[in-house]
Amino acid sequence: MDNYEELLGKLLEKLAETSQTQSAVSSGPKRIPVGISNRHIHLSQKDVEKLFGYGYQLTKLKDLSQPGQFACKETVMVCGPKGAIEKVRILGPVRKQTQVEILQSDSFKLGVKAPLRLSGDLVGSGNVTLIGPKGSTEIIEGVVVAKRHIHMLPDEAIQFGVHDGESVTIEFSGERGGSLKNVIIRAVEHSGLECHIDTEEANALGITPNTEIVIKKNNI
Amino acid sequence: MDNYEELLGKLLEKLAETSQTQSAVSSGPKRIPVGISNRHIHLSQKDVEKLFGYGYQLTKLKDLSQPGQFACKETVMVCGPKGAIEKVRILGPVRKQTQVEILQSDSFKLGVKAPLRLSGDLVGSGNVTLIGPKGSTEIIEGVVVAKRHIHMLPDEAIQFGVHDGESVTIEFSGERGGSLKNVIIRAVEHSGLECHIDTEEANALGITPNTEIVIKKNNI
Repeated sequence: MDNYEELLGKLLEKLAETSQTQSAVSSGPKRIPVGISNRHIHLSQKDVEKLFGYGYQLTKLKDLSQPGQFACKETVMVCGPKGAIEKVRILGPVRKQTQVEILQSDSFKLGVKAPLRLSGDLVGSGNVTLIGPKGSTEIIEGVVVAKRHIHMLPDEAIQFGVHDGESVTIEFSGERGGSLKNVIIRAVEHSGLECHIDTEEANALGITPNTEIVIKKNNI
Repeated sequence: MDNYEELLGKLLEKLAETSQTQSAVSSGPKRIPVGISNRHIHLSQKDVEKLFGYGYQLTKLKDLSQPGQFACKETVMVCGPKGAIEKVRILGPVRKQTQVEILQSDSFKLGVKAPLRLSGDLVGSGNVTLIGPKGSTEIIEGVVVAKRHIHMLPDEAIQFGVHDGESVTIEFSGERGGSLKNVIIRAVEHSGLECHIDTEEANALGITPNTEIVIKKNNI
């Protein structure tokens, strides 16, 4: 009986591969994978040393889909006036400025402001205190909720008929299906094709890494 | 200076009232208020007594928008194989069967199944253990994620051009605006007009109790 099940499994796998290839050929542009982010932190080297000690280097745990980006072994505690969240993952490599990306519900729990922003757009954003094993650091500005976006290569943008910085709508089906407006195209070299949303967006809309999303122009 | 501010406040209030009235008159159907639910529990009297003691009666904390429904002073802990969530609010009055409504993220934290269901549709739904001050009870079936829906009176359904049980799409604007498919109309007597979504849906989509939502037929 085990043999039959194994054979059936292989047949189904093969069938899935075939239908994926056919769909890629027939529908033109590539399928857009979905990357679902939980709360996380990008640290400056200065803040790494405040939290983990002088000269400390982050430890890579695993590579992420965007080339050069990785999840680190290290986590810290994020504290606001109303609460704290433990074990928030650090992502590497270090950046020029520390950026704390939280969920909307985290901003209520912590009691902090967290405007909806694209990565790097930190002027006037929120403030929290980070607690590490060797010290703490107050992030005066750098707390945001990530604005949903799609990473792609400039060539892929041409395929999809969009351009860097454009705001599009994405559509998807399923029990909690619907559409999301104001998804920003980030089309630069060295990108991995991926639509980035956070866990609240994914849960609320029943989106998994396997959900098929379709780009629609915002004005259609 | 205080007097000027008070006067200005009153003028603005009056203006807001006037424009609301005008919009109700000009746009036909009433505006649909949004009710945002966090995780909560409806208990059977049998489970109330298991958790709080023999003959115990739930204590009303405040009335909810649906006639006869109320939030209780009492909370319990919800436990699954992977984790626990403390202080989950009980809603009254008691029901025939206990129903535990959690967020999708809670289902991961607890390590339990929680299918997307309308209230009362509990066959084959998830299981958790509830811990109260006087005892615990295992809910064999009754754990769900609430399927979004709109309560209204049968007369209001006629105004909106929909019927009880119909699945519609709602649209809304804002920084995280978009649309949600598969929103079920619940048009029965003794209802308060309100669209019910959970906190993950609200956070993910930037919806607040003041967000204006528009019903669109699913097939449009």
